Amino acid sequence: MKQKLNVGLIGHKFMGKAHSHALRDISMFFELDCEPVMHTLCGLGDDLAATAARYGWQRHADSWEAVINDPEIHVVDVCTPGDTHCRIVVAAAQAGKHVLCEKPLALNAAEALEMYRAAQAAGVRHLVNFNYRRVPAVNLARALIEEGRLGTIYHFRALYQQDWPLDPEFPYLWRFDQTVAGAGSMADKGSHIVDLARYLVGEIDEVAAANEIFVKHRPLSEQPGARKEVTTDDAAVFLARFTGGAMGLFLTSRMSAGHKNCLTFEVNGSQGSLSFNLERMNELEVCFRGERPEGFRTVMVTDAAEHRYIKNWWPPGHVLGWEHTFVHQYYELFQAITGGYQPAPSFLDGLRNQEVLDAIEVAAREKRWVTVTRSEAAA
Amino acid sequence: MKQKLNVGLIGHKFMGKAHSHALRDISMFFELDCEPVMHTLCGLGDDLAATAARYGWQRHADSWEAVINDPEIHVVDVCTPGDTHCRIVVAAAQAGKHVLCEKPLALNAAEALEMYRAAQAAGVRHLVNFNYRRVPAVNLARALIEEGRLGTIYHFRALYQQDWPLDPEFPYLWRFDQTVAGAGSMADKGSHIVDLARYLVGEIDEVAAANEIFVKHRPLSEQPGARKEVTTDDAAVFLARFTGGAMGLFLTSRMSAGHKNCLTFEVNGSQGSLSFNLERMNELEVCFRGERPEGFRTVMVTDAAEHRYIKNWWPPGHVLGWEHTFVHQYYELFQAITGGYQPAPSFLDGLRNQEVLDAIEVAAREKRWVTVTRSEAAA
Amino acid sequence: MKQKLNVGLIGHKFMGKAHSHALRDISMFFELDCEPVMHTLCGLGDDLAATAARYGWQRHADSWEAVINDPEIHVVDVCTPGDTHCRIVVAAAQAGKHVLCEKPLALNAAEALEMYRAAQAAGVRHLVNFNYRRVPAVNLARALIEEGRLGTIYHFRALYQQDWPLDPEFPYLWRFDQTVAGAGSMADKGSHIVDLARYLVGEIDEVAAANEIFVKHRPLSEQPGARKEVTTDDAAVFLARFTGGAMGLFLTSRMSAGHKNCLTFEVNGSQGSLSFNLERMNELEVCFRGERPEGFRTVMVTDAAEHRYIKNWWPPGHVLGWEHTFVHQYYELFQAITGGYQPAPSFLDGLRNQEVLDAIEVAAREKRWVTVTRSEAAA
Amino acid sequence: MKQKLNVGLIGHKFMGKAHSHALRDISMFFELDCEPVMHTLCGLGDDLAATAARYGWQRHADSWEAVINDPEIHVVDVCTPGDTHCRIVVAAAQAGKHVLCEKPLALNAAEALEMYRAAQAAGVRHLVNFNYRRVPAVNLARALIEEGRLGTIYHFRALYQQDWPLDPEFPYLWRFDQTVAGAGSMADKGSHIVDLARYLVGEIDEVAAANEIFVKHRPLSEQPGARKEVTTDDAAVFLARFTGGAMGLFLTSRMSAGHKNCLTFEVNGSQGSLSFNLERMNELEVCFRGERPEGFRTVMVTDAAEHRYIKNWWPPGHVLGWEHTFVHQYYELFQAITGGYQPAPSFLDGLRNQEVLDAIEVAAREKRWVTVTRSEAAA
Repeated sequence: MKQKLNVGLIGHKFMGKAHSHALRDISMFFELDCEPVMHTLCGLGDDLAATAARYGWQRHADSWEAVINDPEIHVVDVCTPGDTHCRIVVAAAQAGKHVLCEKPLALNAAEALEMYRAAQAAGVRHLVNFNYRRVPAVNLARALIEEGRLGTIYHFRALYQQDWPLDPEFPYLWRFDQTVAGAGSMADKGSHIVDLARYLVGEIDEVAAANEIFVKHRPLSEQPGARKEVTTDDAAVFLARFTGGAMGLFLTSRMSAGHKNCLTFEVNGSQGSLSFNLERMNELEVCFRGERPEGFRTVMVTDAAEHRYIKNWWPPGHVLGWEHTFVHQYYELFQAITGGYQPAPSFLDGLRNQEVLDAIEVAAREKRWVTVTRSEAAA
Repeated sequence: MKQKLNVGLIGHKFMGKAHSHALRDISMFFELDCEPVMHTLCGLGDDLAATAARYGWQRHADSWEAVINDPEIHVVDVCTPGDTHCRIVVAAAQAGKHVLCEKPLALNAAEALEMYRAAQAAGVRHLVNFNYRRVPAVNLARALIEEGRLGTIYHFRALYQQDWPLDPEFPYLWRFDQTVAGAGSMADKGSHIVDLARYLVGEIDEVAAANEIFVKHRPLSEQPGARKEVTTDDAAVFLARFTGGAMGLFLTSRMSAGHKNCLTFEVNGSQGSLSFNLERMNELEVCFRGERPEGFRTVMVTDAAEHRYIKNWWPPGHVLGWEHTFVHQYYELFQAITGGYQPAPSFLDGLRNQEVLDAIEVAAREKRWVTVTRSEAAA
Repeated sequence: MKQKLNVGLIGHKFMGKAHSHALRDISMFFELDCEPVMHTLCGLGDDLAATAARYGWQRHADSWEAVINDPEIHVVDVCTPGDTHCRIVVAAAQAGKHVLCEKPLALNAAEALEMYRAAQAAGVRHLVNFNYRRVPAVNLARALIEEGRLGTIYHFRALYQQDWPLDPEFPYLWRFDQTVAGAGSMADKGSHIVDLARYLVGEIDEVAAANEIFVKHRPLSEQPGARKEVTTDDAAVFLARFTGGAMGLFLTSRMSAGHKNCLTFEVNGSQGSLSFNLERMNELEVCFRGERPEGFRTVMVTDAAEHRYIKNWWPPGHVLGWEHTFVHQYYELFQAITGGYQPAPSFLDGLRNQEVLDAIEVAAREKRWVTVTRSEAAA
Repeated sequence: MKQKLNVGLIGHKFMGKAHSHALRDISMFFELDCEPVMHTLCGLGDDLAATAARYGWQRHADSWEAVINDPEIHVVDVCTPGDTHCRIVVAAAQAGKHVLCEKPLALNAAEALEMYRAAQAAGVRHLVNFNYRRVPAVNLARALIEEGRLGTIYHFRALYQQDWPLDPEFPYLWRFDQTVAGAGSMADKGSHIVDLARYLVGEIDEVAAANEIFVKHRPLSEQPGARKEVTTDDAAVFLARFTGGAMGLFLTSRMSAGHKNCLTFEVNGSQGSLSFNLERMNELEVCFRGERPEGFRTVMVTDAAEHRYIKNWWPPGHVLGWEHTFVHQYYELFQAITGGYQPAPSFLDGLRNQEVLDAIEVAAREKRWVTVTRSEAAA
């Protein structure tokens, strides 16, 4: 009889939905060493009970403390806004729960360090939900790099482009208010591409950056004719130098016309190159120097031979959707919990990510190159 | 309180898995007027109980008759091999069950006619699982054509290419035996592209065709050194004339190197063109004459504005996977059952499809153009 | 001192311009064993003298007989409408001139046979201008197939799509009149793709076909309100079986919205596949089974290592234009003349091509499969 | 009778070949108001006479002073290494010649200013050969931006990637020596993409940058076993802010595996986006917000309706090669000379370009944001 792992999920909006779906799907597709249980969904609002039922949760709660303190719960999954992560995660760890936390892990490196130390001190497993590591094509990219098929890495670049508030008449939202949202595209989208940079190429040593608010004031829905100042960046660009000598080039934008959820990256090494586009997430482009004839090839990453996750899904050529990255992420967490090891990306990855984001912010504000400060995490 | 619809699914292999997953997902994402229940999974083999549990079924059964005769069951979903469809479907309809049947509907038009008449006589709802109609991009294609944005249709072509048995040493399977499999790529893959042709362009009047077995004998796994003759076609090509004057060009192949599940089609009309590739199923390419400047554009069909299914899933740019076509198909069926209307593609579509496949088979065998015989279905 | 080869070019319109340009360019880029001279341009119309001067011809003539009979001329290049090819070519060969003739070689196989025999009897060199054989990417395709890298060929398909007369109000032209133009898209465009089929895969044994005139009457520019019947096909589709067992699928259309000069082909074999698009003529897509990971790769065919023509042009990545196929064709002809051998594609290729086109025409008219009759050319 | 314009071309290697070809072609394709004459080719080496003859020049000279001082010559075209531009161009202008100069115009802004002032003082026409402005697709991009179809520009990014010396064993060349070559990829390739940035978006106000030499020592061909230090950069990245508020992101690399001559750019504005790839130079991708359905479309820029150069070439879909950008550049120069106006990109553009490159160099060296100094050119 498999060990039951009761999950409490805090947050029931967009990410809460994606995580719930992953929990519904995981046992059908993956052979786990435990039996995850959709125990409690925690959220606010009149629709909570209905949503919990609809998503398949056994119970619901309207206070995160109730989840943290529920002795039946083994795993806490934090999908709340960024400014609440630190409080909830630290409390959950101290209560002995394993913790999965949405990205970015924290508002800044100081918070992230506190969270990491709390989890380590409590001896619980911790995972930051940089789910794009779990796209099979991204996994394959990492495997090819690790095998040395690209040689020494010279270039990494990543762009994360969307266009949802492109219209200057798109109304003011909490996301445009820095005091609530914490960050604009530079940190929100940037945390994803910085994680991919670290995952694929390694640590970043120094950065230069700039960001911009293209639409300075947006209309208030509730006050016709009135506008409010936007205080989070619409877009950012940054340069990076990696420890290994590679050069990085990054862009984040929520104002890039025609791009919906377009995260692309390219890696160029001394032996070959590869590139990826999240909007074509089942494909990886690779080029290996010296093949005859040479060129970039489009690999459908839906073949079990190429990837350990794929065999659990469908035959080759039957594409996976975006939401299954969350299934894979949960798979890594559950296997680590039952296997007794620490999964990746851990809170240490979350901390390192935040240290880069902090450096980018300083670099943009002070208009200079900034060295990334890596804290003594083990202290 | 919503009406419960108890589903009995017959078949628990590849298609059984896909249908089961759709039933798990549907209530989470779609607002239905009923409450579907995963009542009974029917299959053969020692793994049935475990599979049923894993997929989320309440019960399991090893005889399809038990499902047909269970008075609790309202909907029967038939995912068995093609040579059993007619028997099971006719019995299910006569038992008053609504029926969803995998494609191709039958072994030939005579069977399909019998099935259609049985369902109509019983007054039940019937649906053939041509699930590619339910890809959002294909749905958008149909909508654009219906709105007249392509003008009069001149050309339709569709290719369905795979390469799984490309290696001549790939072992002999039941799929290579015509007496068991009924058909090779021409009917198995052909039924999908003929359905898309009918869905997008209309009825087919006449056909010319050829098919081929490229690897004539394949090794028997159980008898080292022995080989057995292949009697189902590896590939087929056919031409068609549509009632509306368009010309059709078709190819099916399981021996087309580099193609995994590559169903592509293109439609060219007097005002524009569109094309689709199942391996990039979240995209549709469209070109409208006279735009300045003119060109084929790649539409990410993940925007709720473009499609009624999409609003139930994720924000724009977050791609859907292949398996969600089954969710959409079930959605159409359940809404039709509760709404009291007949959904499409119905068994009449299955019959019309089969009539074209029969004509293609004669055309290939007799090496001549063959007029498609459309039976008096209403009789 | 290199031998001078005086060229007489008959026809000064679109093809005359392309051939003239090739003659201007060839000596600058290619090391020839002769010195081609732009001796005489032959055409009709008031602009002939100006055109000849502008294109760089030494003289001009308004009668093709004058060119044929000019003892100074060594090479006659025939770029006139198809119904004049036979007469001019036979006369030129009998006058001892080497002959380059535009495609399709003749109106039918009988004419082509006469032309071939005349050239052979006269002992002159003869070349049909199937210039797409001379695209470096197509040349590379042929080389890869010859090396066996695709294994046994199973599938060939080629589409040649344009849309210039898509508008039903596009005025009546001589090209719409069968008595003048000889053929519509099926032969005019079809001759190109049948040549590529023969070049890449081999001889075609039998065909089935259909063609269509989508716009039956077109307005006469000179008579406002009046329309004239179109008697050449707008589009055609055909199937083929090759001697080697491969199956062919073809489409030609001048009514395919969004396609300008879009000749595409794909070849699938037991070991790999390749595909080409004339609108991206510097690229070839190739896929080799068993590469890890496997996929279609885009080869920029601009690297001297891949192609003997390329070294004469620019560094890798500097793309060539359509018109340079004519330079390459002339290069093959001139080297053959000075080297004393017969270049390809010869009039025998033109004859074989015509025999396939004749079979397609019968197949479309009589709605049956037709075996290609290959005449005893050597007789 | 048209005015003759005698051209003297200094430099007979790669660029000399490209410019010579343009002069051969231009009169055949373009209706000019003058008659350009290939008067004198100037170069060094034993092959000069043969090359001049082969390229179609009337005379040849081995001293650039001879060209400058030849009273018959009206136009001097400078295709020599960058460290000689200033001397030759100033002398040519002072001798009253119109001047076309290869890019980058000079080694630094001081030189460029001197050249600009000399040309202005002499009253001659001057043009820098930023030939990629003359790609029809790039021209169309500019036209769409000028018409306002992209709205306010928010983002510009451009990458210029090659991989010719990717192999660390690729031998030492003069291009790796800063004292000879002046610059590595940052200036050599960077000058092209900075020009496109200015052409499409406007002036650049400030920059941050980094560059790198990935292979520090390369083998000397003449001394087996010996290696020499590389002093020009292999790659560079830089950020920019435009006067109009847009943000720029740039990369140049000669070490980006799989890219041959891959100059790509993308422009994102408040109403739409466009992108370009030099390796597919006949295409432009455009996306206009609000089209239904919305997406990036691929425009074949080979239609006379879209572009004033195109009508001189071939019908739609017949692609142009890289070398014809030089024909277009010459067309602009000759028309300006006979028309009595100053063509673009002028030496002022060359100066502005150089000022940006100088700022990038300082930014990379001093690791800080640098404001571009724009000299009082008119003084």
